Amino acid sequence: MTGTTMNDLASSATVPATTPVTNEEIFVGHEGGKLSVGATRPISDPRELSIAYTPGVAKVSTAIAEDASLAARYTWANRLVVVVSDGTAVLGLGDIGASASLPVMEGKSVLFKTFGGLDSIPLVLDTTDVDEIVETLVRLRPSYGAVNLEDIAAPRCFELEDKLKDALDCPVMHDDQHGTAIVVLAALRGANTVLGRDISKQRVVVSGAGASGIACTKILQNAGVGDVTLLDSKGIVHVGRPGLSPIKQDMAWSTNRAGLSGGIAEALDGADIFLGLSGATIDGSLLSLMADDPIVFALSNPDPEVHPEVASKFASVVATGRSDFPNQINNVLAFPGVFRGALDAGARAITDNMKLAAADAIAAVAADELSVDKIVPSALDPRVGPEVAAAVAKAATADGVA
Amino acid sequence: MTGTTMNDLASSATVPATTPVTNEEIFVGHEGGKLSVGATRPISDPRELSIAYTPGVAKVSTAIAEDASLAARYTWANRLVVVVSDGTAVLGLGDIGASASLPVMEGKSVLFKTFGGLDSIPLVLDTTDVDEIVETLVRLRPSYGAVNLEDIAAPRCFELEDKLKDALDCPVMHDDQHGTAIVVLAALRGANTVLGRDISKQRVVVSGAGASGIACTKILQNAGVGDVTLLDSKGIVHVGRPGLSPIKQDMAWSTNRAGLSGGIAEALDGADIFLGLSGATIDGSLLSLMADDPIVFALSNPDPEVHPEVASKFASVVATGRSDFPNQINNVLAFPGVFRGALDAGARAITDNMKLAAADAIAAVAADELSVDKIVPSALDPRVGPEVAAAVAKAATADGVA
Repeated sequence: MTGTTMNDLASSATVPATTPVTNEEIFVGHEGGKLSVGATRPISDPRELSIAYTPGVAKVSTAIAEDASLAARYTWANRLVVVVSDGTAVLGLGDIGASASLPVMEGKSVLFKTFGGLDSIPLVLDTTDVDEIVETLVRLRPSYGAVNLEDIAAPRCFELEDKLKDALDCPVMHDDQHGTAIVVLAALRGANTVLGRDISKQRVVVSGAGASGIACTKILQNAGVGDVTLLDSKGIVHVGRPGLSPIKQDMAWSTNRAGLSGGIAEALDGADIFLGLSGATIDGSLLSLMADDPIVFALSNPDPEVHPEVASKFASVVATGRSDFPNQINNVLAFPGVFRGALDAGARAITDNMKLAAADAIAAVAADELSVDKIVPSALDPRVGPEVAAAVAKAATADGVA
Repeated sequence: MTGTTMNDLASSATVPATTPVTNEEIFVGHEGGKLSVGATRPISDPRELSIAYTPGVAKVSTAIAEDASLAARYTWANRLVVVVSDGTAVLGLGDIGASASLPVMEGKSVLFKTFGGLDSIPLVLDTTDVDEIVETLVRLRPSYGAVNLEDIAAPRCFELEDKLKDALDCPVMHDDQHGTAIVVLAALRGANTVLGRDISKQRVVVSGAGASGIACTKILQNAGVGDVTLLDSKGIVHVGRPGLSPIKQDMAWSTNRAGLSGGIAEALDGADIFLGLSGATIDGSLLSLMADDPIVFALSNPDPEVHPEVASKFASVVATGRSDFPNQINNVLAFPGVFRGALDAGARAITDNMKLAAADAIAAVAADELSVDKIVPSALDPRVGPEVAAAVAKAATADGVA
């Protein structure tokens, strides 16, 4: 498994700048950090102070003490997302620790505000113990409304997300898994619309069985994909392969209807879609083994599994994680709207249907502009967040979690 | 002990409004909460995104991973105060729980920004176990720069503050104790200047041996007060009294040079200063037992130990915690500047000298305007925060903790 690709998906929100960004610009842009807490209402005279603080605030505290549900209305917690990381799988940098991960988490909070209109604070943890992280967030539960897990290494990220979902009555999502999966599905819907194809008839090769690879496999299954062939660094994940981890064993049973074994060549033979989430490059000529006019998403960053110019020789649609090529798959299309919709609805969880609805909403924004070079909206498209939020809130209600 | 007075000190920052504040105004003023997280630099184009988020942010994370000290410069953590409460002694409301305490903590964060220019977030905890609170804050250490403890009941607040100071390499202060003590000392300095008196020759009666009573006693001792007679609900705390808690036993040894025993009447007999932090009213005529022209600080809220109009018949200077009488003792004069100064200096702790320096700085702001009706600056005086911060930073350096 690699922790690289999934993070790098989120790392390429840029399109080419006229001149390259310099190190100096980057460090100046981080002086003092990137976040600031402000008052929604200023305090400039005694009357305002007596409303926002004492004695007025005592009325609000008393009201919440008598009716706990009022906290949702009269505090910021209900709309506050905590961006939680232990710094173990930060971007492509690996296990660099909590403090070094903080600039990424601050950036994430900026994106939550910019694209989702949500308040958000980073909580970076000086522990990598799953149970300690769960315990910490349980103790802090009255302080926030939702948990965005970020840059936590596989396979701990699976266990952590599962335990948190059990322990907390609020939306929890590991973005490196599900944010990626949502945008991949949205882009695949866009590509299939352009090409007039049906997802239920397609076989997808998912290269990379880490956090994003497994999440993408699952969302494709939930979306009714024909078949998935999942590969890790040792080849195709199949039922008969010895030494599979528990999660890969599970995946072996639910994927690979074709009954394949072997490596990347055996997987690609006749496949309709290649989804690269491995962090490892492959020989581009292998794409010639695929079915006619395949779809290729080579999402590793900064080096896609196959360079998009090479991939274009074989594929009808090519997407990458990079901003300097068409069809950028960027998590920022998903997470602000997903959390906004979940919180707007008062959802207690983020369900599979909410993720599917998010993917459909992203795809719908680009529907009128679709082409082989535009299968998803641009990362900065301001229409996406609100559309995703509305769709996710609706799905939360339909699923009975709101 | 009472947890009432100390909190109420912070609860009276108002001066009389032309018309009373209505419940409706208060609740409307709390809709959606009072805090908002924003970006210090907006993201409105791909270039800004590539600086604040990926790929640019990877340079900053890498730099911090290689040199941990750079986190202070390139993240917000170094200037972020966490306002921590377990909701056990909220204002005068008592143990109303973490969620109900949140509006108060949000208000506190607004005050940190308004008067100290500091970013601040509430962390309210669904545990009242001292070790669990310490453990939680240790795990979150890379996320923040300082800890403001708030509205935590005595005697746990003493143990919690001590353990946190041992566990953390950053400023930690329980505001209900030390913020109150700092402003009380500042006001006493102002009163003594007006009256031409010397603190080393005065005996102070401190009524209330809770968090604020004990902290006020200690700061008066550190400031060289002549003597303190400390009372709890059972009377004068003295060495021979059976059943004293450990902290009161300690206080018995360090106070009461006069060797008094008995109740409030015995304590007040011949005393120079009355400092009410008890939450319980006393018979005003008892003040006639004091030395000539005494100083009376009746700080319980909303009902001072002695009504200020009654106290004025006996005393030369009267202060309360209320905004509708002269000489309001309000914590907001202290905590924003104390934390700002500590963080500006990079202090690893808040020392006794830093607290004394804060008190002197507050007193100095009012020095040119002193009168019996103005022994401290007004709660909203914008000069106080910066002056306190500068004095605290200087003291931190002098004490070798910066």
